[in-house]
Amino acid sequence: MKDFVFCNPVKIYFGKKCMQHFGNEAKKHGGKALLVYGKGSIKKNGAYEKIVSALKKEGIEFVEFPGVRPNPVLSHVRKGIEIAKKEKVDFVIAAGGGSVIDESKAICAGAKVDFDVWEFYEGSKFPKEALPLITVLTLPATASEMNMGSVITNEENGLKLSMGGEVLYPKASFLNPEFTFTLPKEQVVYGTVDAISHIVEPYFNHTAEYNTLSLNIADGILKTLKTECENILKEPENYNYRANHMWAVTVAFNGLVRAGLGRNEFPNHAIEHAISGLFPDVAHGAGLAVVMPAWMRFVKEEKRDLLIRFSDNLFEKSVAYPDEAITLFKSWLSSIGAPVSLKEIGIEKENIPQIALKAYEIIKNWALNKDFYTVENIEKILEFAL
Amino acid sequence: MKDFVFCNPVKIYFGKKCMQHFGNEAKKHGGKALLVYGKGSIKKNGAYEKIVSALKKEGIEFVEFPGVRPNPVLSHVRKGIEIAKKEKVDFVIAAGGGSVIDESKAICAGAKVDFDVWEFYEGSKFPKEALPLITVLTLPATASEMNMGSVITNEENGLKLSMGGEVLYPKASFLNPEFTFTLPKEQVVYGTVDAISHIVEPYFNHTAEYNTLSLNIADGILKTLKTECENILKEPENYNYRANHMWAVTVAFNGLVRAGLGRNEFPNHAIEHAISGLFPDVAHGAGLAVVMPAWMRFVKEEKRDLLIRFSDNLFEKSVAYPDEAITLFKSWLSSIGAPVSLKEIGIEKENIPQIALKAYEIIKNWALNKDFYTVENIEKILEFAL
Repeated sequence: MKDFVFCNPVKIYFGKKCMQHFGNEAKKHGGKALLVYGKGSIKKNGAYEKIVSALKKEGIEFVEFPGVRPNPVLSHVRKGIEIAKKEKVDFVIAAGGGSVIDESKAICAGAKVDFDVWEFYEGSKFPKEALPLITVLTLPATASEMNMGSVITNEENGLKLSMGGEVLYPKASFLNPEFTFTLPKEQVVYGTVDAISHIVEPYFNHTAEYNTLSLNIADGILKTLKTECENILKEPENYNYRANHMWAVTVAFNGLVRAGLGRNEFPNHAIEHAISGLFPDVAHGAGLAVVMPAWMRFVKEEKRDLLIRFSDNLFEKSVAYPDEAITLFKSWLSSIGAPVSLKEIGIEKENIPQIALKAYEIIKNWALNKDFYTVENIEKILEFAL
Repeated sequence: MKDFVFCNPVKIYFGKKCMQHFGNEAKKHGGKALLVYGKGSIKKNGAYEKIVSALKKEGIEFVEFPGVRPNPVLSHVRKGIEIAKKEKVDFVIAAGGGSVIDESKAICAGAKVDFDVWEFYEGSKFPKEALPLITVLTLPATASEMNMGSVITNEENGLKLSMGGEVLYPKASFLNPEFTFTLPKEQVVYGTVDAISHIVEPYFNHTAEYNTLSLNIADGILKTLKTECENILKEPENYNYRANHMWAVTVAFNGLVRAGLGRNEFPNHAIEHAISGLFPDVAHGAGLAVVMPAWMRFVKEEKRDLLIRFSDNLFEKSVAYPDEAITLFKSWLSSIGAPVSLKEIGIEKENIPQIALKAYEIIKNWALNKDFYTVENIEKILEFAL
């Protein structure tokens, strides 16, 4: 087990009635908010109305900033920062999924500095202060509501990079499973795949030699994600299925599983970020479903025991070889409707070199193992995904 | 799944080198500390020296307050509060196990009020402010280092009661597994039993009808506790075994497992608090090892499925009846050296009525189900433990 520092101060208000606390929490952070959201699904699922009525009741002014897109882009972030500065907002409310929350974190940090926010993502600057952030989650996927990370795509160069910092933890996050009842099936599937990938990365890529706790907890979260995703697809308005799924997605990437595992690598994310950075219509979860089994095939010898453990836990069925484990995982991904090949997400063999080059840039930016994840090896992984 | 609010802001510094951060963390909280500890084991395991040298290096004054006993008592708490007030300390450092931390929390809250600290435990007052607390854990058991609870015994009436409140979360806790290398075997065993009981209570006593996540995570923590306790007993100076055990004990009772389970009852704790309140030489973990299997026998019909699940997970062996599950658990407790009968902890049949009456008082004080846990039923449970 490796040394670690763990502190996750996010206050989670969870459940059917959680929005009752919204006004009270919001007024702690000031009298004027920037309300960030996407294409307006929050006006259908009930979140918008609850937020606006609570703000009005507390006399909190707010400026709306809609239009965040999936795989949020730098140009829109910059607009948000401009508005936050001009309007002198005291805090930011992110209402939506991981894209809205990640963009809001960028606005929170960007509003406090005079330089371009992209410097945080390039790694030349580190966020030291930020506007307070409250999130209202409507799409469980990234766990951004309970962590300090943010991923943004720079559409000028197709680079999708991340930043992190303690000042980016939301002050509070509101998780009402009922807001997820209206999500399209594919978003449930992609959200689940994303959450599974947040476990897969530390599960397979860590430096601690011996860590029973993190892997045992990871096994428990993985089981819940699988069961509840299947349950939701059959019965989308079952509150308990939605609630367990939503909370499992959040807990999957709030720092707990990673504690004590030492340095984590994120190769699947690096490769997927290259894909959705270059092909912004590919959902992050869809890209991950394609990359993970291919990556597993590439590392199947060195990760043999972990692959068998992962599969035995998830599928409650003992396998003898890593190939069987990968086949089971891939079949299950297909069964819930996730793509498992590049072709299914509209990417051809000829796109591979370009993706591999971009992924290698991200590998370097994240200081991952660039001697192992060479352009050539990334191409091999992508070929397994054809 | 039930609605919940979850926020655990404790900063955990974990590992071999964690004390490097101690001075830096301490100076955030002021220039003068009260250093609370027990009978001096911290002078053998290395914690005392690390703390004192860091305080000196940072120029932080400190007053020592040793002598906390297992099952910490109100009279000693009151002395600590007097000293904290007289010396005008800015913060408190608890160096030891759960007893030292619980007593320190009492001092932190008591130092801020003019009335008697026992009023918090009786429930007539609620702690609204407290001195900042830093803990250095040397005995993994209660998870007090990462929660907001405190248990104190009033030796005037033998009542062992608890209080809780957000202001009682430690600001930071330092967990160096090496400090636990010198613990006597029985403390490892009792600490493990205590941690298991922190999972057992919400596992079996909750109101949520459906919660896959908490129970799946609980299963993972339970497995780690069992494995690492067995490993430590064989190889006490294996760092990885100690580290996984220490962190599992902390995570077992930091609020995560309980989130979403609804109202929890703590019948095993209520009965055990009666035992160790009246017989202060009984270690809390020893009392729990005696009570849990007896309590399980009493509720075996209504908790049938959960008992089988609990056992199947922990012993990786499928059982058909709850009695088999209880027998396996009891045998395992014996195998690690925990007592499983009242006789083994020096309590006779004739003591049962007195314990049952005291337990019933605690049941009422905690607002548990007093219609189910009547004096008569508590006596039945205790008779199963003979």
